[in-house]
Amino acid sequence: MYCPHCQQEIAAYRNPAATVDIIIEIDGKIVLIKRKNPPFGWALPGGFVDYGESFEWAAEREALEETNLVVTGLKQFHTYSRPDRDTRQHTASTVYVAQAEGIPKAGDDAGDAALFTENNLPPLAFDHAEILTDYYVAKKAGKGRPDK
Amino acid sequence: MYCPHCQQEIAAYRNPAATVDIIIEIDGKIVLIKRKNPPFGWALPGGFVDYGESFEWAAEREALEETNLVVTGLKQFHTYSRPDRDTRQHTASTVYVAQAEGIPKAGDDAGDAALFTENNLPPLAFDHAEILTDYYVAKKAGKGRPDK
Repeated sequence: MYCPHCQQEIAAYRNPAATVDIIIEIDGKIVLIKRKNPPFGWALPGGFVDYGESFEWAAEREALEETNLVVTGLKQFHTYSRPDRDTRQHTASTVYVAQAEGIPKAGDDAGDAALFTENNLPPLAFDHAEILTDYYVAKKAGKGRPDK
Repeated sequence: MYCPHCQQEIAAYRNPAATVDIIIEIDGKIVLIKRKNPPFGWALPGGFVDYGESFEWAAEREALEETNLVVTGLKQFHTYSRPDRDTRQHTASTVYVAQAEGIPKAGDDAGDAALFTENNLPPLAFDHAEILTDYYVAKKAGKGRPDK
């Protein structure tokens, strides 16, 4: 990277950026948000983890910020880290499953928030279609997590 | 952060740093390495994930670098992200379980590498004692992952 003041190069050790996504279950449906920023499309609620914040806190915070839902029963599902899963930069997402009640209401970076079933999923951004395929396979097998 | 050339402050968005650790199983025992750098003590083999590298590749690379073992059957266990799990900086570790054959031989950042059973574990650095408690509980319950 380069210093914005003196333009000289700075050695910076770079890791994949830590993010979380949350599969929020309401009455047999799941919550998706419509993204306001590129890449456009529908996606699981989620975002970057702040330094000093556990992934579980980040998941609850992002769920509240983007859907106005207070989630309960948060459980870790799986971490997805393929370098090409986000074309903007290398991010890794730890995905959680949680439950909520009520009606999602879009907030923060979300243009819309709505409930979907497995059979009416919209086109999804990132690798979220793969994540939801894993989720429904694990759910049918009675497992909390993907077998991979 | 500050530029090392002009000493002016630079706004840098900081995330927890992504790391991986690997529980390598050999004949009912697991491999631990003795750390050459602080915090000293024994620990699971592991390290920082490189930008552009999936966590699975990082786990296989770190296993080879630190123990000279080629691991097989890599499965994801759980991601640990508590901000105080590493006193040097906030790191999050995605832990994998894998199998290997042969005798571990310390390499890279490892001063020693040896096999241990549940009943003769040495004092462990970071939150690795907690990780191994979760691992043995999950193993006895016939589950691949902790129930949390």
